[in-house]
Amino acid sequence: MINNTITGPRGFLAAGVACGIKASGKQDMGLVVCPTGAKAAAVFTTNKVVSAAVTICREHVRTGETAAVVVNSGNANTCTGSKGLADAVAMCKRVADGIDADPRQVLVASTGIIGHALPMDKVRSGIDKAVERLSASTEAGLDFAQAIMTTDTRPKQAARRFELNGKTLTIAGTIKGAGMIGPNMATTLCFITTDAAISKSLLGKALRAAIGDSVNKLTVDGHQSTNDTAIILASGLAGNRLISSECPRYRRFAKALAEMCDDLARQMALDSEGATRMFKVVITGAATAAEARKAARAVADYPLVKCAVHGGDPNWGRIICAVGSVGVRLNPDRLTCKLDHITVFRNGSPARFDRKKASQVVSQTEHTISVELGAGKASDFCYGCDLSRDYVAINADYHT
Amino acid sequence: MINNTITGPRGFLAAGVACGIKASGKQDMGLVVCPTGAKAAAVFTTNKVVSAAVTICREHVRTGETAAVVVNSGNANTCTGSKGLADAVAMCKRVADGIDADPRQVLVASTGIIGHALPMDKVRSGIDKAVERLSASTEAGLDFAQAIMTTDTRPKQAARRFELNGKTLTIAGTIKGAGMIGPNMATTLCFITTDAAISKSLLGKALRAAIGDSVNKLTVDGHQSTNDTAIILASGLAGNRLISSECPRYRRFAKALAEMCDDLARQMALDSEGATRMFKVVITGAATAAEARKAARAVADYPLVKCAVHGGDPNWGRIICAVGSVGVRLNPDRLTCKLDHITVFRNGSPARFDRKKASQVVSQTEHTISVELGAGKASDFCYGCDLSRDYVAINADYHT
Repeated sequence: MINNTITGPRGFLAAGVACGIKASGKQDMGLVVCPTGAKAAAVFTTNKVVSAAVTICREHVRTGETAAVVVNSGNANTCTGSKGLADAVAMCKRVADGIDADPRQVLVASTGIIGHALPMDKVRSGIDKAVERLSASTEAGLDFAQAIMTTDTRPKQAARRFELNGKTLTIAGTIKGAGMIGPNMATTLCFITTDAAISKSLLGKALRAAIGDSVNKLTVDGHQSTNDTAIILASGLAGNRLISSECPRYRRFAKALAEMCDDLARQMALDSEGATRMFKVVITGAATAAEARKAARAVADYPLVKCAVHGGDPNWGRIICAVGSVGVRLNPDRLTCKLDHITVFRNGSPARFDRKKASQVVSQTEHTISVELGAGKASDFCYGCDLSRDYVAINADYHT
Repeated sequence: MINNTITGPRGFLAAGVACGIKASGKQDMGLVVCPTGAKAAAVFTTNKVVSAAVTICREHVRTGETAAVVVNSGNANTCTGSKGLADAVAMCKRVADGIDADPRQVLVASTGIIGHALPMDKVRSGIDKAVERLSASTEAGLDFAQAIMTTDTRPKQAARRFELNGKTLTIAGTIKGAGMIGPNMATTLCFITTDAAISKSLLGKALRAAIGDSVNKLTVDGHQSTNDTAIILASGLAGNRLISSECPRYRRFAKALAEMCDDLARQMALDSEGATRMFKVVITGAATAAEARKAARAVADYPLVKCAVHGGDPNWGRIICAVGSVGVRLNPDRLTCKLDHITVFRNGSPARFDRKKASQVVSQTEHTISVELGAGKASDFCYGCDLSRDYVAINADYHT
């Protein structure tokens, strides 16, 4: 059986255990280890308020060789002051002691409630238990994927395999969370392993591009949380010749990584709070790339568009209003909007279209909203999901 | 009995009639007339896509003397191309013919569904009927307030009276709509009358300030619609000495106008789709005024904050996340948050507070969320309302 979890690529061990941080008793401590040492790269939230884990991880990822990533769920270690920083460092040290590495070779991430100190007794016992259970099995990979979940309803994993220099390279990843989940909960954590031999700088470049075009294109409620972190570890054990320049082999690797991240982002969108379907917004004809991005996000974030998608309503008026409202340049006489292949608005005027077919398009699990602004040549896209009563229920009825 | 409708100030007649634009048969054509001629000023949406009515009104408001304002509900006359422009002009001409004025002395506004041509037969008969029914009565003022409604559940009116040079001046206004209402519906229309004698330029200045600090501070779903329009007419019949400079008398007038607009904005917030309560966000300690504004809107627009308010949950974590997420400068060690008088987060760390009392604060019809950023001296505020299942129901279940 093929192992499509993060223990699939050669050189990785993982574990996921329960140590009592979550009141539910579910798994809440995950660990992934590369005994031979891995190149690491990471992308972090742009929020100005960040978790202590993010602060420490940003520092540790600069180390040349990384040995492990430790992740707890149930507590974000955010807004916890200097104790939070000490706790994040202590997590790295505990892992390092357990696997015989330097604390700076351990990366750390946290997700969960904000403003509460980590229960370090539980954290320490969880880390010790995880170290004991480390395994290269599929089950261990799945345990890790489950240990990072908060209000996610299912573990989300993806993998890609491809040939390079006659060697098979594997990239595997897992992701948790969409939307600022639960009360005071933090959002997206993404962990990727690969056995590719690639330089640290190119690994970072490929990760930034892949996350930028996938996870960072997904807007559930328009904000990056305090804890968002994506980490990739490369063991280099696939046996390919080291990728050290932006050659065709690099592009192959980057493409496979981007596809896998896109897969994870879509899984996350469909598992976001209350979401029943997702959509892609494609903006063309923008005056600048920044304006294309702004217009795409305006549509995907607009609550009335999200409600219309939830209702299966081909409501182009709300789409037009959204792109018009954020100050991006557009030519009202060339403004055109499509829902998949159906043109609903053409050159500034409503188009005739089959309302029933258009409603079917919007009612799919995923459809594409395209808007041509007629103001230039720049384009961009993003992903959104619908807004349902369940989103409100999840986020209003749960009390801190 | 005191007339607190828009026919309250001396010199105004009004009417509100049903002419069949709305399928429901409810009032959908409003008219206000100043037979002696009024100074007029207006503020319009910043959306790049605008109603034909906005395009024409922007032009006509430059005329020295204004005779009337005509408003239809049920159809926004937006995305209707050159026919839409001709229809808006024809509305002004029909009114002008009926009251013996120049078409350029008539202002026009529309609200309702986007992308459908105005049914001009009905519009013409509605205007004729409204001209016939013009009256200075309280009932006529209320009819007008009802005729501009779309999914509003009640007419919203406010008035202020004050003395100047021994004369009583009156300002009265009515407002409709909050949120991009219904499917393809357009938003805020506000009409104000006053008998103050004031120059056209100062009237405009006072209106811009008043709307800027009231209606434009209210964010229901974060966007200005294609039709937003606020108009003030001043008959000058109160008998006060003409206000022609920024003297104390101007400031008295501007203050009364601002208070009345604030009253209207609050009424609108509480009548917005599905809203059960509202809140004010006050940002202090921002590096610049623009950053203060951005941070305030980030909190008020953040769906998770809106859901927490709906649930009566003192969820400061979401507030902190919102201000951190929009790129404004802040000092994490000085970041402080209050809910009314209760400090829930102080200098970057969670504060101890009585959770029950804090929940009572958030459960009020209105409370204030204050955030000190610790990055400078600029401040700003805005208003928001909660996000409920009803908002989703209204906006997802209704089909175009």
